[in-house]
Amino acid sequence: MLKLGVVGTSWIARSFIDATSLTEKFTFSAVYSRHLDTAAKFSADFENVQQFDQFDQFLATDLDAIYIASPNALHFEQAKAAILVGHNVITEKPAFSNPSELTEILQLADEKNILFFEAARNIHEQSFTLIKDFLADKTITGADFTYSKYSSKMPALLRGELPNKFNPKFSGGLLADLGVYLLYAAIFWFGKPQDAHYDAVVLPSGVDVSGVGSLDYTDFKVAIKCAGNFNSYLPSEIYTTDGTLILDGVNAISTAKFIAVDGSKIKIELTAPKHSLYDEAVKFAEILTNKDFEAARKLQSFAKDVANTSYKMRQSAGIIFDADKK
Amino acid sequence: MLKLGVVGTSWIARSFIDATSLTEKFTFSAVYSRHLDTAAKFSADFENVQQFDQFDQFLATDLDAIYIASPNALHFEQAKAAILVGHNVITEKPAFSNPSELTEILQLADEKNILFFEAARNIHEQSFTLIKDFLADKTITGADFTYSKYSSKMPALLRGELPNKFNPKFSGGLLADLGVYLLYAAIFWFGKPQDAHYDAVVLPSGVDVSGVGSLDYTDFKVAIKCAGNFNSYLPSEIYTTDGTLILDGVNAISTAKFIAVDGSKIKIELTAPKHSLYDEAVKFAEILTNKDFEAARKLQSFAKDVANTSYKMRQSAGIIFDADKK
Repeated sequence: MLKLGVVGTSWIARSFIDATSLTEKFTFSAVYSRHLDTAAKFSADFENVQQFDQFDQFLATDLDAIYIASPNALHFEQAKAAILVGHNVITEKPAFSNPSELTEILQLADEKNILFFEAARNIHEQSFTLIKDFLADKTITGADFTYSKYSSKMPALLRGELPNKFNPKFSGGLLADLGVYLLYAAIFWFGKPQDAHYDAVVLPSGVDVSGVGSLDYTDFKVAIKCAGNFNSYLPSEIYTTDGTLILDGVNAISTAKFIAVDGSKIKIELTAPKHSLYDEAVKFAEILTNKDFEAARKLQSFAKDVANTSYKMRQSAGIIFDADKK
Repeated sequence: MLKLGVVGTSWIARSFIDATSLTEKFTFSAVYSRHLDTAAKFSADFENVQQFDQFDQFLATDLDAIYIASPNALHFEQAKAAILVGHNVITEKPAFSNPSELTEILQLADEKNILFFEAARNIHEQSFTLIKDFLADKTITGADFTYSKYSSKMPALLRGELPNKFNPKFSGGLLADLGVYLLYAAIFWFGKPQDAHYDAVVLPSGVDVSGVGSLDYTDFKVAIKCAGNFNSYLPSEIYTTDGTLILDGVNAISTAKFIAVDGSKIKIELTAPKHSLYDEAVKFAEILTNKDFEAARKLQSFAKDVANTSYKMRQSAGIIFDADKK
């Protein structure tokens, strides 16, 4: 069993622990929180979990991998510290604030023989591979990806507060939060775009609450729309010379239907994952168990392309994080 | 009855004649085509239609309005000639190749006391006003408009031919063809955008076969997607602080549903127009009959904003028409 240490006590951290438990490859062994009582409450459902409010003590624990689900802007220092003491690292997406931080971590991980993962859930879903296979013999002519969801943090923002999600100090904004899923989908299916552009609605804080972007490939464009201040019910679509593939979303896919140019229809049969994070947890377990650096580097290559594309988009929209100024 | 002269013999010309007949305010009186036999065939279903293959002879006819449905790039010279001999003019959309041409025509029409119209069908639909009323007490936070339809001219394009629709000599491209409907919808509901941007897939001919754009308003963005090389089945959406309005399209609207932030739903009852061009034909008849220059100028103001926005988008995508070089 892989001993898992967890940084952060949010719902996503709990969800990741549940998914890793389902794989029967991981055991939740330690948790770090700034407050010991939060750590205690978080691990109350589990047995033999060490609780820490001192990060260096947490790092000194015997662990096979550390999962970091703290606010985005903290991932970098925490991942660096974990790698330096020899732990494999999984960071929640977005892994870091910008491509420079990612490059530094990947170099360090390489030097120290450490496996590093960005927990970008969606591309590990079996549906993503089924769709990649379906598209293999087709010529792409465009795509339209949306992920817009009214955020639970909107009321606080409207009250004049500044939740981490909307704070440039914490590398927030909707492109970083939801847009990343759209970039992972595009890059997984179509490769790295030549260029990218983002027109964002920028909050007084300096980060985006919504935006419309496009990814430039040689022969086609991918529309990228994300928002935290409204709900979109739009499906996502992939266009080909043969017809249109309609997906109910690209953050998670449960239905996929192809309508050919001649009007004929094909339904792609998809199996729902056991748990939304199960497929990625299985993948990480496999790579960690086999010390499969080649497979890890393949995933890192997606992470690099996403980070570079996201950064290009942010720059075109004039969004600067505090971490960019370091 | 308003005597209508028609330039061009395409399906849209026939459709416009049918709609004007339904209003019982117009009578189809004359047709111009480069070929007399085409003009004869085109008007075979009607009585007392004069047929011309000489444009100056056509213009010398007694008419209350001329409807121009020739290829886009010919509208300017034909409209100019018609105004100079004292005819009111309706041009099929897009009225002209660029804003300079529109400005020149509007100035000339003003000097000569001529009513000028761009036949942008959609904003005359009653549904557009119903939706404008529905939005009146709401704060817009974004919108997403799509009009992508596999063109009947694609096979010719793929065979290596260059149909007018894809020819910069004829001021073609998809933004000019289908995108204009999206711009009319946005400008009718939200006003003129501060800025606009377009990432286009540019054909070897120099015009766009598809594109992803955005309109920049102070507090929100409108995503604009159009294409001629694939079909999109995406509805269009308007986002507000109260919830999301889902429309089956903005080129023509037959269903409108609002989903509030709390999940409650409102269906907006829409009545289908008698004919897709009926509502605009009624409007034009009214303005022509009453010589209502104020109402015409209000429509011209939309036309100007659309032309300027479309031109900005084309420039950002590096699309240059032959007409722009004059």
